[in-house]
Amino acid sequence: MSREFDRIARLRAIFAGEHRGVVLGIGDDAAILAGDAVASGAVLSTDAVIEDVHFRRAWIGQGVTWRDVAYRAAAAALSDLAAMGAEPRAMLTSWAFPRDLGDDVVDEIARGFRDAADVYGAPVIGGNLARGREIALTTTVIGAAPVRVPRRDGAKPGDVLWVTGALGEAALGLAALEGGIAAEAAPFVTRFVRPPSRIEAGRFAAGSAHAMIDVSDGLLQDLGHLCEASGVGARIDALEPTPEADALARRLGVDARALIESGGDDYELLIASPADVDLSSIARRIGEITREPGIVGARTTRAGFDHFE
Amino acid sequence: MSREFDRIARLRAIFAGEHRGVVLGIGDDAAILAGDAVASGAVLSTDAVIEDVHFRRAWIGQGVTWRDVAYRAAAAALSDLAAMGAEPRAMLTSWAFPRDLGDDVVDEIARGFRDAADVYGAPVIGGNLARGREIALTTTVIGAAPVRVPRRDGAKPGDVLWVTGALGEAALGLAALEGGIAAEAAPFVTRFVRPPSRIEAGRFAAGSAHAMIDVSDGLLQDLGHLCEASGVGARIDALEPTPEADALARRLGVDARALIESGGDDYELLIASPADVDLSSIARRIGEITREPGIVGARTTRAGFDHFE
Repeated sequence: MSREFDRIARLRAIFAGEHRGVVLGIGDDAAILAGDAVASGAVLSTDAVIEDVHFRRAWIGQGVTWRDVAYRAAAAALSDLAAMGAEPRAMLTSWAFPRDLGDDVVDEIARGFRDAADVYGAPVIGGNLARGREIALTTTVIGAAPVRVPRRDGAKPGDVLWVTGALGEAALGLAALEGGIAAEAAPFVTRFVRPPSRIEAGRFAAGSAHAMIDVSDGLLQDLGHLCEASGVGARIDALEPTPEADALARRLGVDARALIESGGDDYELLIASPADVDLSSIARRIGEITREPGIVGARTTRAGFDHFE
Repeated sequence: MSREFDRIARLRAIFAGEHRGVVLGIGDDAAILAGDAVASGAVLSTDAVIEDVHFRRAWIGQGVTWRDVAYRAAAAALSDLAAMGAEPRAMLTSWAFPRDLGDDVVDEIARGFRDAADVYGAPVIGGNLARGREIALTTTVIGAAPVRVPRRDGAKPGDVLWVTGALGEAALGLAALEGGIAAEAAPFVTRFVRPPSRIEAGRFAAGSAHAMIDVSDGLLQDLGHLCEASGVGARIDALEPTPEADALARRLGVDARALIESGGDDYELLIASPADVDLSSIARRIGEITREPGIVGARTTRAGFDHFE
């Protein structure tokens, strides 16, 4: 048996299990989900995590494992389902690896995907292995649509802006990793590599939200997308870091407030809901939608992340 | 507007159009397919095409265009739907590009995907752009399941083996490209970069087939998968190249019969059907399934393609 088929057999074992709605999993030309599992609509998104762009091998052992890197790759893709208020059903993931990558690393990557599959309820039902110069993990997620899908383009003047969780802390974790002090910033590093699932929050908010988006490239940039799509503007409150975040930022020589507004990698949900809706059980209020275009109230101006600049 | 957003706007224009069953296309956190579009079951597969593994930049201008490279990437993924007898509904495609890749090249790649989307009826409804050291095109396809899904594991002794189209000709096209004589082997090069759609053949065969698989890694290897999954063996006929294929093979110093049996990149369908079923309108008979394990009748012994060897 070739090494490739041995590898595939091991991966199948890691991804094994009975999963609701999965008619056929890994092992044939394609996988099959029952039509009933996506009867309300199939919500689909794809995302890639690439070595030296989204992670670095040098992190491994510095407070981050391969399993974490893989978890984050899956969670980043699944976050798009949260932002649609969808219920995850499955993932397919295509991996490129250099020829010399050890089987133990591949298994750890599979276990990270399995961890995310279990947390999000999205079993890995298909995949692909290919050779590449750098490690690349490309994941497609499929979920069931909610009754009302909150798109980016439905925000209205007077809507309240809410955000789940704390912004900027993942970026602090990344800065700590890059600065070589991951061990002293463990909660922030964990926040970066194992972002919390916002699936339940997204499903809850979908019932009332006029618009929703996940914050992956920084608040100002993603709020900008939402405003542009909706033809509105926004006023945001002055957001303050926690004392712990502020202390870490000072130590790293970065601006905690700038990271809150533009840090990226948060995978929190940004929600625009009618003013009479209370989302305080899942999110906190950070501003409101305005008629005038543009975002006011930000204390920093960094434009956010451009994948090619 | 950043270069990235300009790029995305251009790609959206190339992929624009109204498509049956597509509730929401490119531009939000995720795309949505109507539940009705996959009511019979959602068939899903993912595949990657990577620079210097599956194609080379040196080919461009030697009888192959970027548009062809992209078409082939999409067609390779869609072939897995054909092998399940599924009807394509949509594609999502995640691209990694070096920073310096020209916008004209990116547009040509998008047009190649659009070509395939039109031929297969699978619009591009989502994607992702990321930076990478090498070009990688990772595509996930979704289709509607047929009433009976022909898996790999259902072949029975006495079944007749059928194959759509000619095997080995794509491999000859690749050899001609690599040998620098693409211009003199245009039909074979086209066969390699623009494999014919076997979607209709797959849907037709699904009604009666006991087992079906697409031949992507070579007949012996993929027939081996089918036999192993089904717990059977096979006897194959001596397959002869056409005079044109034989002449090209001689010129290239390769064995046309070996390429027929192990060449790869065919994307033809291999079907095991009950002996009383006539599939001659879509395929030709190349052998039969036997009770004894192993494949007999092959004239060459190459084991096929291992993605990591």
